[in-house]
Amino acid sequence: MVKEKSPEDTHVVMSELVLPNDTNTLGNLMGGRLMHWMDIAAAIAAQKHCNCPVVTASVDNVSFNNPIKLGNLLTIEAKLTRSFNTSMEVYLQVWGEDLSAQYKYLTNEAYLTFVALDPNGRPRKVPAIKPVTEEEQHRYDGALRRRQLRLVLGGRMKAEDAGELKALFIKE
Amino acid sequence: MVKEKSPEDTHVVMSELVLPNDTNTLGNLMGGRLMHWMDIAAAIAAQKHCNCPVVTASVDNVSFNNPIKLGNLLTIEAKLTRSFNTSMEVYLQVWGEDLSAQYKYLTNEAYLTFVALDPNGRPRKVPAIKPVTEEEQHRYDGALRRRQLRLVLGGRMKAEDAGELKALFIKE
Amino acid sequence: MVKEKSPEDTHVVMSELVLPNDTNTLGNLMGGRLMHWMDIAAAIAAQKHCNCPVVTASVDNVSFNNPIKLGNLLTIEAKLTRSFNTSMEVYLQVWGEDLSAQYKYLTNEAYLTFVALDPNGRPRKVPAIKPVTEEEQHRYDGALRRRQLRLVLGGRMKAEDAGELKALFIKE
Amino acid sequence: MVKEKSPEDTHVVMSELVLPNDTNTLGNLMGGRLMHWMDIAAAIAAQKHCNCPVVTASVDNVSFNNPIKLGNLLTIEAKLTRSFNTSMEVYLQVWGEDLSAQYKYLTNEAYLTFVALDPNGRPRKVPAIKPVTEEEQHRYDGALRRRQLRLVLGGRMKAEDAGELKALFIKE
Amino acid sequence: MVKEKSPEDTHVVMSELVLPNDTNTLGNLMGGRLMHWMDIAAAIAAQKHCNCPVVTASVDNVSFNNPIKLGNLLTIEAKLTRSFNTSMEVYLQVWGEDLSAQYKYLTNEAYLTFVALDPNGRPRKVPAIKPVTEEEQHRYDGALRRRQLRLVLGGRMKAEDAGELKALFIKE
Amino acid sequence: MVKEKSPEDTHVVMSELVLPNDTNTLGNLMGGRLMHWMDIAAAIAAQKHCNCPVVTASVDNVSFNNPIKLGNLLTIEAKLTRSFNTSMEVYLQVWGEDLSAQYKYLTNEAYLTFVALDPNGRPRKVPAIKPVTEEEQHRYDGALRRRQLRLVLGGRMKAEDAGELKALFIKE
Repeated sequence: MVKEKSPEDTHVVMSELVLPNDTNTLGNLMGGRLMHWMDIAAAIAAQKHCNCPVVTASVDNVSFNNPIKLGNLLTIEAKLTRSFNTSMEVYLQVWGEDLSAQYKYLTNEAYLTFVALDPNGRPRKVPAIKPVTEEEQHRYDGALRRRQLRLVLGGRMKAEDAGELKALFIKE
Repeated sequence: MVKEKSPEDTHVVMSELVLPNDTNTLGNLMGGRLMHWMDIAAAIAAQKHCNCPVVTASVDNVSFNNPIKLGNLLTIEAKLTRSFNTSMEVYLQVWGEDLSAQYKYLTNEAYLTFVALDPNGRPRKVPAIKPVTEEEQHRYDGALRRRQLRLVLGGRMKAEDAGELKALFIKE
Repeated sequence: MVKEKSPEDTHVVMSELVLPNDTNTLGNLMGGRLMHWMDIAAAIAAQKHCNCPVVTASVDNVSFNNPIKLGNLLTIEAKLTRSFNTSMEVYLQVWGEDLSAQYKYLTNEAYLTFVALDPNGRPRKVPAIKPVTEEEQHRYDGALRRRQLRLVLGGRMKAEDAGELKALFIKE
Repeated sequence: MVKEKSPEDTHVVMSELVLPNDTNTLGNLMGGRLMHWMDIAAAIAAQKHCNCPVVTASVDNVSFNNPIKLGNLLTIEAKLTRSFNTSMEVYLQVWGEDLSAQYKYLTNEAYLTFVALDPNGRPRKVPAIKPVTEEEQHRYDGALRRRQLRLVLGGRMKAEDAGELKALFIKE
Repeated sequence: MVKEKSPEDTHVVMSELVLPNDTNTLGNLMGGRLMHWMDIAAAIAAQKHCNCPVVTASVDNVSFNNPIKLGNLLTIEAKLTRSFNTSMEVYLQVWGEDLSAQYKYLTNEAYLTFVALDPNGRPRKVPAIKPVTEEEQHRYDGALRRRQLRLVLGGRMKAEDAGELKALFIKE
Repeated sequence: MVKEKSPEDTHVVMSELVLPNDTNTLGNLMGGRLMHWMDIAAAIAAQKHCNCPVVTASVDNVSFNNPIKLGNLLTIEAKLTRSFNTSMEVYLQVWGEDLSAQYKYLTNEAYLTFVALDPNGRPRKVPAIKPVTEEEQHRYDGALRRRQLRLVLGGRMKAEDAGELKALFIKE
């Protein structure tokens, strides 16, 4: 019998140095390059869970709070939060770090979802995941609500049918 | 007196061929590479409006509906929808196209926001934009609602204070 | 019956930001990088016409008149002028633009030719193209003369046999 | 006293392996990538002569005769042919080579011209060059004629004033 | 008073997916690309210790034991072993992983040394490091011997003066 | 009968310009990028000898003596020294050159070994090589000693069995 995986089994750490071509004319990392790295880190976490190729299905709202400077260290940590039928949600944290100034800052957090693919490129089932820590349980529980939000924002579910989400906006 | 700009003045078209290094092991364009190109196209649209450097502030929910194959043509169109105090929202449409099969498909739509920067890297005011067509007016009106959603999702506004948004979920 | 295509059906617009790695030590776009982008834009225009893979056959004389600065926007427009038996001529215009200074300048024009390939990599026939505007007709007519010049410069036609070309040098 | 340089003093050899991202969907090197490498090799030859930064001024007609396959070795040789007031003409030969099949083939030849720049980015004088071998003398002599052709094709000289060139088309 | 750093304080994890352009014609990661990533990971570990820019001074013998396939995950772990006057030695472990086959393998180990630089690019002193675990102590002790080997191999120390090293070859 | 090859038959020259993305924050070429280029140049030399795909087996100790500046010319020369059963040793010299200052400097030397592969990716026999010049003979003779050092450092030979190497450390 296969042991059920935990979010920690999918934990990925990616370190990158911000090089000149990654920056805009003010010497800050371009948002698109960061998203590129985030997508790769998250895809690895998803592949660690399903052990098969995956394709990016969606990226939730991402806010970039601190510019990341040329020469800074970028660290991305990714971890699966929950799997659905054929898809998986990954949670990411991104830090910048000025190693000379010894200053480290949270840049942004994000949720990306991936679809698992069989060798013919069609969606395939993925195993369930078992949260262990309290934080993992918290993100696991929130995954349903974020999924409804994605469906509503993507026009594939009516807002009034999104029960989990509605509760956010109405204190009854 | 400076003429007020319209969304059409910020219109950007970007064409790219999907090359081997842009793809995953199934030969499809990786989501992160696509987001990288989307960010550049949208940043150009924003710079066309404010005539100054910009930095990505946020990316709204993005869903990827159709895989884009190696060798396909990718076309991104970007246009400003509305400017706020120091930020601008850009609307993007992304198409894939198999030129041999003469098959063109919408891949996804997205909204990105950018902050305008002065030469010292601090936010600066941006001029207003004047929607002309009906569709431009429609996107201009929706920009407020999407802005509230960003603030709520980014944890900088309480859900119950997001009046525009609330209407989405409650048919009173 | 297939409708005859016009040059406008092959129109391609490509927008690129000049990033640090694209420049020389004086901060100007390197000619070779520009030629790389021109080749891709022109190849897309050719593929839009023949709907098959293509290979670059020749690049006509190109003069670079204005240096393009780091951070500037580069816009390339490509359009088919005329097709021959298995080859197609594409006309390109390249603009640089300093978005902050709101200054746009023509950098260069060029003609590239491509050969259409079948799935085995051998030349295949391409359909004719029908010029519509006066300018398209003008470029269509000039294509024969440019083709003779290519053959003469490539050593595959004797100068004295290039009737179209000769007229350029002798006012009889 | 500074010794006059010969073309051999500017000789550059560049070897590159054709990697996946350099190729089109048929597995052949894209023309634009090749032009990029040619530009760098030729710029090095020009810099070896003038010992200052240079900028590409023009590329003469280039014909690509043999497709270069993925994994093949590409060898570019560049050498200055002649210097004018502030510009230099460089002659290039490009070979492809399938190392497993032990098959080497000439892909194309080309002439590129560069302008020498002072530290402010303005054109500066370049020293003369002294051809030594018969072939170097031959290319040195032809440089004038190619220069007239560039001026005529670039619209900066009338065809009937291009004495050197005219002789090509008329056997008097 | 500044707390003395331990090797764990310099620990770096880098995850990369092997993409098409990183491979040779047999679909294996090229050794040079791997060395490029190893150099960046090790440089980050060194910068974490000295909090200043660093430059690669040497790479010890590296053997590549297992080919890494296209699409595989590459994980590099780096950690400082010992600092000398102005230089630091970093120990690296590199794993490949086929996520679909759930097969992970050690690819190679390596030692790289870096020199710490002041803002003018001249060597500057680096703080000592304090090994904590038994393995860290073991690598700390071995660092002197590896340093002598570097000096002998680099021709900057005579073999007969390398006391630490000599013991390796002679059982007295 | 096939003529035996000499080291000169495998001679490779590679010229590269150091571009912004190749450098660290002090504007010097990163060691890892240099190793990447060295690996490609050496692999070409090895392929010229065995006429088959190769894979990097090891890199001997490399010391970097002079930083190479942005915009400088990098020249790598590679040549086979000796072939063993299925492997080949390649000797490399690397120069930097500031073309404006007309200053050329040796950066480092290195030995890399490659394994020849058959179409299934398994090691295959390589032909012997015949040194011609005195320097080639010298490097040919030293190859055995360096091979023992690799085996000892890689833990695949006991130091006391490395007869060639021992002589280095003991003047008997």
